[in-house]
Amino acid sequence: MTQLSINTARLISEINTLATFSDAPAPAVTRILYSGQDQAARVWLRQQILDAGLTIREDGLGNLFARWEGSEPGLPAVGTGSHIDAIPHSGKYDGVVGVLGGLEAIRALKEAGIKTKRSLELVMFTAEEPTRFGIGCLGSRAMAGTLKPADLLAMSDPEGNKLDELRQAAGFKKTLSGVQLAQDYYSSFIELHIEQGPRLERDNLQIGIVTSIAAPATLRVILHGDGGHAGATLMPGRKDALVAASEIVQEVERAAHESGSPDSVATVGLLQVHPGAVNSIPSKVTMEIDIRDTRLASRDGMVDRVIEKIEEVCGRRQIGHDVTILNRDNPCQSGEEIIQTAERVTQRLGYSYKKLVSRAYHDTLFMAQICPTAMIFVPSENGYSHRPEEFTADEEIAQGVEVLALTMAECANL
Amino acid sequence: MTQLSINTARLISEINTLATFSDAPAPAVTRILYSGQDQAARVWLRQQILDAGLTIREDGLGNLFARWEGSEPGLPAVGTGSHIDAIPHSGKYDGVVGVLGGLEAIRALKEAGIKTKRSLELVMFTAEEPTRFGIGCLGSRAMAGTLKPADLLAMSDPEGNKLDELRQAAGFKKTLSGVQLAQDYYSSFIELHIEQGPRLERDNLQIGIVTSIAAPATLRVILHGDGGHAGATLMPGRKDALVAASEIVQEVERAAHESGSPDSVATVGLLQVHPGAVNSIPSKVTMEIDIRDTRLASRDGMVDRVIEKIEEVCGRRQIGHDVTILNRDNPCQSGEEIIQTAERVTQRLGYSYKKLVSRAYHDTLFMAQICPTAMIFVPSENGYSHRPEEFTADEEIAQGVEVLALTMAECANL
Repeated sequence: MTQLSINTARLISEINTLATFSDAPAPAVTRILYSGQDQAARVWLRQQILDAGLTIREDGLGNLFARWEGSEPGLPAVGTGSHIDAIPHSGKYDGVVGVLGGLEAIRALKEAGIKTKRSLELVMFTAEEPTRFGIGCLGSRAMAGTLKPADLLAMSDPEGNKLDELRQAAGFKKTLSGVQLAQDYYSSFIELHIEQGPRLERDNLQIGIVTSIAAPATLRVILHGDGGHAGATLMPGRKDALVAASEIVQEVERAAHESGSPDSVATVGLLQVHPGAVNSIPSKVTMEIDIRDTRLASRDGMVDRVIEKIEEVCGRRQIGHDVTILNRDNPCQSGEEIIQTAERVTQRLGYSYKKLVSRAYHDTLFMAQICPTAMIFVPSENGYSHRPEEFTADEEIAQGVEVLALTMAECANL
Repeated sequence: MTQLSINTARLISEINTLATFSDAPAPAVTRILYSGQDQAARVWLRQQILDAGLTIREDGLGNLFARWEGSEPGLPAVGTGSHIDAIPHSGKYDGVVGVLGGLEAIRALKEAGIKTKRSLELVMFTAEEPTRFGIGCLGSRAMAGTLKPADLLAMSDPEGNKLDELRQAAGFKKTLSGVQLAQDYYSSFIELHIEQGPRLERDNLQIGIVTSIAAPATLRVILHGDGGHAGATLMPGRKDALVAASEIVQEVERAAHESGSPDSVATVGLLQVHPGAVNSIPSKVTMEIDIRDTRLASRDGMVDRVIEKIEEVCGRRQIGHDVTILNRDNPCQSGEEIIQTAERVTQRLGYSYKKLVSRAYHDTLFMAQICPTAMIFVPSENGYSHRPEEFTADEEIAQGVEVLALTMAECANL
């Protein structure tokens, strides 16, 4: 088998440098789409890509494509990539390992003198995290055509800034209609990512090969109660939006515990109280609810149960409510040929591995709509992710890059 | 009886002008201590006071004293006043009616040629609202000596800005040890305020004479759970700080409903979720709880019940918790002589009235620690307060000012 030399020190140094572009003090990382830190990180990333000798293309949303041409550049390419945006107070590996690891994979192939038939392309997807626009995988949804230009034009962040103005102010002025990729753009797409769960570590394994991605749904719920002075307004007749919300938070947890599926998870991650003063009755609460399962029926059962509860609570408490289903995506299955290739490569390299389901969703969920896909996972210490303690050892990352590189190379010669 | 001419048009115009100093779009008013709008409002207010021919003194916290000297200026003065800070998205009358109405009362006495024996003094208290430092009546607590300079030096806002630096940056550089007033500084203190409840309107009355102020307690609760990715972290073993908080919110409501006292109120007005992303398990929740009753025993019973519940929930869910009692004040009784004077004045003017308890607390609660006090209430439409719909009719405000002015004049000749 071809021998690759992964430059672990270079890669880890790049991961550490990228972590310094952050709106939170280290070790926490906060990097929000189109923020100053996001823009500065992109400038730095472009330079690393140019230094590696790849060519860059960016679309109207800021999705970045870095290509190393194959010997038959007219063929659909093999893609890899992930994201560099980071939710508030998270860690430095989520997404970043797939972008800088993908870059290192292509560099390692180049440096080993391996020229593939198909071109290899690294993608840095715009905003996999839902932080700013309330919907995850903004870039990959648009690339797959799940979000159309009209959908993108309608989007605003919570401060009322329009996505269309923000992306242009950030320098991405190409048409939104140019974002969607053709169905034959990639022959396959393989994403490297940290597991964000404890399974590989628990089983003492080096590599995870993802066979499917769980189906997420996101609800935004706005409750409209009645405000007033917390001292002077007696209890009877109060319409406190937060007390109503607290019943819904409880039900979200119960829905997951009682779904009958061990894979069910349901979380209220965002809850904002208006006006938010100690002596003022909450007149409005905005909450966002994340519900997932690897089985569509269990997931949809939880969604229905939570919506029923919202209606019951709000009816009983005379609270107005708006429920928006921000996304309700289908699970995806990995391409059988890519899984087999990755498995063969991993076995040849002598790394321990298992095939598993991804409970977190990724840009690959949407790339699966235009080509066969798979994902390579590396372990997450304690299963931690989306927090500053997120950690994957240098060697584990390098092993993931090696599996990615050789799997891409094999797929690129098919 | 002396005839006073209250200049209603001038007063209402001033109330409307003061409302324009706001960080929220009209009709909402947001005016936070030491913010740009607060500073601008103070500049404008000083000018109105100087135009009225009063002399100004300000202390190290920004409490403002506007004095009209009596014929025996060495005697303890008669005080009136209230606050102009406004919680986020509230209305234009709370506090403001007592400051601009107090100014109008003194102006009306001056213009009627009434010279009292004791000096009359208007106070604009710094930060009656707890918005910035989590404790209400900052200025009056310090004036009464309930908050000592060491307490003030230890205070920071949620962004970590120290009170001591903020007040100096706002131009208030006198010593904090000069804030506390002598026990014989005032002979009496009378505050005009909107009712912030529905009782006067419901009974179709013009004036309320406050006989006591309910006893408030404020708890700050910080819950420390365990964060993580909302998709990848399965339900068993989660330590979700928001689900724990939601149980506490429910208990706060139940404690008030089941206290046995019809005057019990308990509210979670502030609840902040960290990190606050839809796909992240809440690792930390900060909440502030407001609990009040006119009876100390009922109030303390609710506080104890809520604290017990916090301990039970956090023990069961393995959530770390810090509970701070920010304040737990005693109720105050109005001065009998002032009540009788106000009642006599109101009867002579022919206004309908009742004596009542104030369920909201006010700076008067702390002035009561250094002198006899009372409050004059005017009606609040629908009982609304702390919201943009807050409303008291022009004539009702003028009637309150008239009662205040004549009550002050009588007290100032005693």
